[in-house]
Amino acid sequence: MGAVTTDQAAFRDELVARGLFLETGVPGLYGHGAAFEHIRLRFDELVTKAASDDRPELLRFPPLMPRRQLESSGYLHSFPHLAGTVFAFDGTESDALEQEQRASRHEDWTEFQSMTALSLVPAACYPVYPAIAARGTIPAAGVVIDAGAAWVFRHEPSADPARLQSFHQREMVKIGAPDEVHAWRDDWCARGLELLRSLGLPAERDRAVDAFFGRGGRMLAASQREQELKFELQVPLGGAAPTAVTSFNYHQDHFADRYGLVLADGSTAHTACLGFGEERIVLALLYTHGLEPTSWPVEIRRVLWEP
Amino acid sequence: MGAVTTDQAAFRDELVARGLFLETGVPGLYGHGAAFEHIRLRFDELVTKAASDDRPELLRFPPLMPRRQLESSGYLHSFPHLAGTVFAFDGTESDALEQEQRASRHEDWTEFQSMTALSLVPAACYPVYPAIAARGTIPAAGVVIDAGAAWVFRHEPSADPARLQSFHQREMVKIGAPDEVHAWRDDWCARGLELLRSLGLPAERDRAVDAFFGRGGRMLAASQREQELKFELQVPLGGAAPTAVTSFNYHQDHFADRYGLVLADGSTAHTACLGFGEERIVLALLYTHGLEPTSWPVEIRRVLWEP
Repeated sequence: MGAVTTDQAAFRDELVARGLFLETGVPGLYGHGAAFEHIRLRFDELVTKAASDDRPELLRFPPLMPRRQLESSGYLHSFPHLAGTVFAFDGTESDALEQEQRASRHEDWTEFQSMTALSLVPAACYPVYPAIAARGTIPAAGVVIDAGAAWVFRHEPSADPARLQSFHQREMVKIGAPDEVHAWRDDWCARGLELLRSLGLPAERDRAVDAFFGRGGRMLAASQREQELKFELQVPLGGAAPTAVTSFNYHQDHFADRYGLVLADGSTAHTACLGFGEERIVLALLYTHGLEPTSWPVEIRRVLWEP
Repeated sequence: MGAVTTDQAAFRDELVARGLFLETGVPGLYGHGAAFEHIRLRFDELVTKAASDDRPELLRFPPLMPRRQLESSGYLHSFPHLAGTVFAFDGTESDALEQEQRASRHEDWTEFQSMTALSLVPAACYPVYPAIAARGTIPAAGVVIDAGAAWVFRHEPSADPARLQSFHQREMVKIGAPDEVHAWRDDWCARGLELLRSLGLPAERDRAVDAFFGRGGRMLAASQREQELKFELQVPLGGAAPTAVTSFNYHQDHFADRYGLVLADGSTAHTACLGFGEERIVLALLYTHGLEPTSWPVEIRRVLWEP
């Protein structure tokens, strides 16, 4: 677990005390109370509105994806520490009995579980690429997919309320010609900044790097920063530095190569995605404007609750 | 995999051909196209409306829950074959390299994954009981929780489009005095039947039993049937027998005992839940009325799409 500031710990405790977060006993895993969820859903609608000019195609995916896809995606190279796989039982009746007895005593029952064909989804855009590739070539104008507010997983237990293991990532994906994909990503940086500031969040844009694993990861990060592949919108959220609440990622041909995304003229497509961390944005609103939404400034409440 | 009828296989192929289901390569795991999701969300709103007299409290939970809770719940006794656990990496840089190399060749990389503190959620009501127990005693009038359309997991790969590994279960839970909980469950059987029939589904109510594991499971099932603990609403869906799309379960003191749910007078609470299998209901609508929703009978479209 990373270091957590006093401010973050106090914020977490207040969220729990007010029923905005429901504790489960596992760090970074919470239920949501009605007030929290109400804000999240309204923010989600604002993203839908901001995206309407793109006329995106809506696709929805479960919180699980084929393990084989995780294996092929490169994720285990960059983020082995964050990935999650699904294991299940496939034994005899006496194995089941032994498993249940050990589990009920909270002892180790690992040996009865084996790897299934499924993994957790690490980012909402991952299932999009093979689904689009399966349709054939990409039209010249490109495609924009709205992958909705999908549940994603990151194995990083923390007492920081903004660092969750299971959370909603609202993602949009563009697949098309390199110039257009790059321009779309940059245009959305501006749209996202405007959206967050309209809610009174002191958001700032910054070049960013992913939390790559290990020594090799430092090289990946340096290259990502130099090529300006990743931007984030960051908001103060009780930590020592501002917290990223939205990210905009230009993948060049990384996913297109792996999944065979080809334009109608036979050239390799490029891809970009953007992701709003919905729980983090709700937390930023609560942190910035106070834990009682009915007392938020009227102009903020108007943006959120009046159509 | 269970036997799949010709009718089920043809239905699945048509769903994929029309983009209602998006194949992932894993049996029982699909993305949803926009038209499928649109129907699902409208049905979800109809359940909200049908539940409004209960004035339920809305709580929302992630698709994961503490493994410790799965261990204590009794689920591994009844359904060891359906449960899923989350594994993750916790090794050195050289382990990560070896893991990635094996995974990218689709070889076995089990040894690098170890059990985390998390499991998949087997039914949407599971996280509700400890969350309510943590608040203290239950008021005399009881509580009704709307746990929303949560993602649940069942490890049962199948080519039957109605047997999914990851799907939305819309659950409501009542916790209170035994008589009231029992009456609530029976009342909702009638409400659910009315709701499904209002959509033109030839739903029938039947006593039912869970798919308990092994020889011991046969005794559990006999007892469950005799005490009328479980009812289902079933609709023809291409199989040899009708398919359950909604279930109503009276748990007596099973969960209350495990999680310490106590009424204000000191007596043990009883619990009941109902769950709409949302994907199955969308499939039943498509199966019954045809794969083109704009051609559905006007009275069905009116119920779904006019407020």
